[in-house]
Amino acid sequence: MSTQVIVINGGSSSGKSGIVRCLQAVLPDPWLRIGVDDLIAALPPALTDAGGGIQVGEQGRVGIGEGFRAAETAWTTGIAAMARAGAHVIIDDVFLGGASSQERTRALLDGLDVLWVGVHCDAAVAAGREIARGDRVSGMAASQAELVHEGVRYDVEVDTSRSEAVDCARTIAAHLRERP
Amino acid sequence: MSTQVIVINGGSSSGKSGIVRCLQAVLPDPWLRIGVDDLIAALPPALTDAGGGIQVGEQGRVGIGEGFRAAETAWTTGIAAMARAGAHVIIDDVFLGGASSQERTRALLDGLDVLWVGVHCDAAVAAGREIARGDRVSGMAASQAELVHEGVRYDVEVDTSRSEAVDCARTIAAHLRERP
Amino acid sequence: MSTQVIVINGGSSSGKSGIVRCLQAVLPDPWLRIGVDDLIAALPPALTDAGGGIQVGEQGRVGIGEGFRAAETAWTTGIAAMARAGAHVIIDDVFLGGASSQERTRALLDGLDVLWVGVHCDAAVAAGREIARGDRVSGMAASQAELVHEGVRYDVEVDTSRSEAVDCARTIAAHLRERP
Amino acid sequence: MSTQVIVINGGSSSGKSGIVRCLQAVLPDPWLRIGVDDLIAALPPALTDAGGGIQVGEQGRVGIGEGFRAAETAWTTGIAAMARAGAHVIIDDVFLGGASSQERTRALLDGLDVLWVGVHCDAAVAAGREIARGDRVSGMAASQAELVHEGVRYDVEVDTSRSEAVDCARTIAAHLRERP
Repeated sequence: MSTQVIVINGGSSSGKSGIVRCLQAVLPDPWLRIGVDDLIAALPPALTDAGGGIQVGEQGRVGIGEGFRAAETAWTTGIAAMARAGAHVIIDDVFLGGASSQERTRALLDGLDVLWVGVHCDAAVAAGREIARGDRVSGMAASQAELVHEGVRYDVEVDTSRSEAVDCARTIAAHLRERP
Repeated sequence: MSTQVIVINGGSSSGKSGIVRCLQAVLPDPWLRIGVDDLIAALPPALTDAGGGIQVGEQGRVGIGEGFRAAETAWTTGIAAMARAGAHVIIDDVFLGGASSQERTRALLDGLDVLWVGVHCDAAVAAGREIARGDRVSGMAASQAELVHEGVRYDVEVDTSRSEAVDCARTIAAHLRERP
Repeated sequence: MSTQVIVINGGSSSGKSGIVRCLQAVLPDPWLRIGVDDLIAALPPALTDAGGGIQVGEQGRVGIGEGFRAAETAWTTGIAAMARAGAHVIIDDVFLGGASSQERTRALLDGLDVLWVGVHCDAAVAAGREIARGDRVSGMAASQAELVHEGVRYDVEVDTSRSEAVDCARTIAAHLRERP
Repeated sequence: MSTQVIVINGGSSSGKSGIVRCLQAVLPDPWLRIGVDDLIAALPPALTDAGGGIQVGEQGRVGIGEGFRAAETAWTTGIAAMARAGAHVIIDDVFLGGASSQERTRALLDGLDVLWVGVHCDAAVAAGREIARGDRVSGMAASQAELVHEGVRYDVEVDTSRSEAVDCARTIAAHLRERP
């Protein structure tokens, strides 16, 4: 079987988005990229401003409510359907619940050939890059750096504190399964 | 049955996105918004830079290739799956093919209760707003103003050259079907 | 003498930026546009996050501290110098202090030929457009709609609740003074 | 005398903006940041679309016309005036003409205490980051990597292919002159 979905998991400011854009550039087939940031952009104000949705609180800690969880499940179900309809999809995600987030995602992607990718970045380096980008709440990078990988199992892991995004993308591309 | 999907169709700079944001604010349930601009943002460079994808040419005319069409079909299939999984979805679209675009979309949304909305705007007004927003290729608004509505059938139509976005949203909201 | 600086004053979501882009498109000479939003983007986090700078509080009310005021004075002094060095400049501003803001700006633009433009918009219409754009704190439009015009004297006034941006721009352009 | 202006020069995708944001975060006084990208954003369409202005051509090569040059001179004159009026200013620039660009800038900043900073980045690394960011014309990074430093003299030089942005910022901060 050949890879239909690439799930990229990493903390805020770990460099996932840059790797995803490089993957799109280096892979010969067209791959769509969709991330949790797109889901957040799709939400109504009621699910980003207040209880029930997603909020960023003290120290950049992210809170998730039931309304957000319900939207996320429908969203991922839809992405799975895109892949079953023939699209190659890269999902750019942040597993705030670690292994339990992976299990939830795995269940929704049932039957698809998924490549699980972990994007690591030293917490201190990610915190510095958070300052450099200037568009994220301070503290998100540090609070998520370890958390999102707890108990998660990967097919391939990269570290953006040690390698450039384009090199990480090449490493990931080398792990894609091709139909024989 | 109650409305599960709202499809908003209108030309570039007709004011669709503003109406969609107002709809999200005025509707009591949470509605996700997903548009053709999100699909374009999800595409790899190979499908936006060159043959096979989507390009904006002379006078803002948009060209569509087979690669884009294939991605769009999988994408809309996925959005339909989100709605079937329980999400309320507003699709912000541009029917470059008029009635044939609607038929293609209708087939992919099969079995869902869809409210079809036409967003009109005088071509000259839309062209002026295209200048005012400053982020679109000149000519798109004028070339699409009539084209996208050719042969399309709607449940409700609004005109942003005559009404504010929030009033258009209220008109649309009044047409939503609620389960008895 | 001919106009060297156009100062456009209006509340949040009154449609100033659209008018400014239309002015740049319709005027035959090149005009630079610089606004208070550019100053805010230039500030360090210490002047946008906390005391001493600029913050948006309850109901979209904007608070200004001494640090912001000092930066703004140097900034406007610099824009005046750009105009004295030969650039045509459109300043997109929000006179939170009404007449006193105008006096402060007038003093810094000393010796330059300035066209003062007021951009009005019904408070209710501006509040609706604030929802439609979706990127401003709720309440800014309503709280600023009248406030910013208190005691201010204009060479020309336009109303975006009654006219399109490009028509407002043409009205303003007709008031530019040309050297005989 | 103490440093009034920091001029940061480096090629496209060399990481200047990230360093500038880190500098603003680590320096105790408030520093304004203004860059050539802000000038380009201030220009009318006539100076970015066509002859006389600035354009990005084949291989990301940037062409500069007389209209752009005139606007740039007035712009830098204004930034110098901001600094003379008491603002601390960080200028984020790209010396397409190398030493001659520096001379032009130096003349306009006459009488100010300027810290000249060179931001280096290996051409191949910058080209990879250009792909990762996904919002620049392909080729700009490679074509500017060496070009912008030709004959330029610096007070301090950093290399983002070897150090993180926040560390580069600390190196630069250590070179600021303080009034005794």
